[in-house]
Amino acid sequence: MKITQVLLTAGVHGNEKTPIFLMRKFQKNPLLLQRSNFKTEILIANPQAVKLHQRYVDLDLNRCFSAETLDKSAPVQYEEIQAQAINRRVQESQTDLILDFHTTTSSNMGITLLLSNDRPFNLKLAAYLGSQNDLVRIVLNGSSKQISSQNNRLRHLIPWGMTVEIGGIAPNVIDPVWVKRLEHLVSQILDYLEQVNQDGAPRIPKVVNIYSLQEPVYFPTDAQGEIIAMIHPNLHGADYSLLNPSDPMFIDLDGNNIYYEGEPANVIFVSESAYLEKQIAFYLTAKKQFTI
Amino acid sequence: MKITQVLLTAGVHGNEKTPIFLMRKFQKNPLLLQRSNFKTEILIANPQAVKLHQRYVDLDLNRCFSAETLDKSAPVQYEEIQAQAINRRVQESQTDLILDFHTTTSSNMGITLLLSNDRPFNLKLAAYLGSQNDLVRIVLNGSSKQISSQNNRLRHLIPWGMTVEIGGIAPNVIDPVWVKRLEHLVSQILDYLEQVNQDGAPRIPKVVNIYSLQEPVYFPTDAQGEIIAMIHPNLHGADYSLLNPSDPMFIDLDGNNIYYEGEPANVIFVSESAYLEKQIAFYLTAKKQFTI
Repeated sequence: MKITQVLLTAGVHGNEKTPIFLMRKFQKNPLLLQRSNFKTEILIANPQAVKLHQRYVDLDLNRCFSAETLDKSAPVQYEEIQAQAINRRVQESQTDLILDFHTTTSSNMGITLLLSNDRPFNLKLAAYLGSQNDLVRIVLNGSSKQISSQNNRLRHLIPWGMTVEIGGIAPNVIDPVWVKRLEHLVSQILDYLEQVNQDGAPRIPKVVNIYSLQEPVYFPTDAQGEIIAMIHPNLHGADYSLLNPSDPMFIDLDGNNIYYEGEPANVIFVSESAYLEKQIAFYLTAKKQFTI
Repeated sequence: MKITQVLLTAGVHGNEKTPIFLMRKFQKNPLLLQRSNFKTEILIANPQAVKLHQRYVDLDLNRCFSAETLDKSAPVQYEEIQAQAINRRVQESQTDLILDFHTTTSSNMGITLLLSNDRPFNLKLAAYLGSQNDLVRIVLNGSSKQISSQNNRLRHLIPWGMTVEIGGIAPNVIDPVWVKRLEHLVSQILDYLEQVNQDGAPRIPKVVNIYSLQEPVYFPTDAQGEIIAMIHPNLHGADYSLLNPSDPMFIDLDGNNIYYEGEPANVIFVSESAYLEKQIAFYLTAKKQFTI
């Protein structure tokens, strides 16, 4: 099976400006995306939120790709309408692969590939990129099913694809160092796809480390729901590091440590600013070796 | 003249969470602020914006302290009402000194003291802090006048005070490293004030470097008003560095450098995310030596 149609998306969150800037560079310089045996298109997914410099207008677009929302007969909110339009475009253009670019404010998420599912195509592409680029980490969330109530991200519209999170980059900042890194990553992906289409994949590691997403850990709060502790400095900016039982996790308003009590786990999305409204401090993951 | 009443403010911008967290620590542990010869109070200036995790509700509170807005007989917008209430509180409590804590997303603003004016009290406090702390930089904007149409920040309500900008810290992130640094700075300030009240100021450098704020430099835009260039990597995260004529300043969508053509100047607020909506790329400053 060959790749014929690739979609690069950015601006699902309107305040994540670094990949949006790169997409505008590609739009102005389409030769940068041109390869011999497939087509690549660009989509700025939430243009109203981009204009407003906000994550979203009415609600988070990247929670609107559930079967329920996509099937609504008369959507009212901007992002629901937008999600249905994007779905139609993806289906009509027979898109084979979606690469959806985001930024995180967490300090050291590097280049995190959030795979749509564990299909071999996705695992191989991720493993290849990991072998080429020290910044790459691979995260898997849930099952191999596509669209469902849990699988509500843009990447879930079709079987092949991933969300690419780069950072730390503050919202509404165009970071030139990351623009360059991301352009290099896109070029590596397109070259890989061209080669797969021609004569099969290049050499890929047989075993790959994958971080399996588990539950979030919430900030401690008082009776009024106010946050009363901050991330411990050992964890801040230490995404992917191992959190062991009895490790300090938070420091409260009196300066006292709060310790972790669960199973050993690797932390990601530490102090992600977009998650503060949900009072999520970080997510736990389980690091596993996958054989491809 | 003695200091009797000090006001520490945070949350003028609701998404600048790091100093807000420190103020809540002080509220819970008032002994941390207690000194022998003056009182210190805390104000969270824009509680509605803090709840919404936004910079502001209706308009930027830190542009509402102009004479015009404070004199409005029937203010309608939330921040105008709030500015008048804060002004009443400051005047009624006979506050001597305002320290207003903010965060910047720019990478290397360190601890920037934006003085309310060039009165000797403010210059001495800033010079003292600069002598104690390598991260401190001092910025002066405009004249020695208080409230006017240009002097519309909270710090302009009374003659003595400053805005303290710390960063880079992404909006809606509680950065534990910066909480600790800021707590140390507040402690240094309060100790200094106690000593000034007792027996005069401690030893202060006679000559101090001050960055005098000049005009903003805007991102290049196309006919539709869209930004078509990013900050050059040499400048990104290089706040306070010297920009010379012919230095690269931006890179456009085609990858070409755009060069600076003005007089030598030091840059600050580089890629400040809150300024992206105004399309401000950075501000120029002139570094000057002041004799105190």
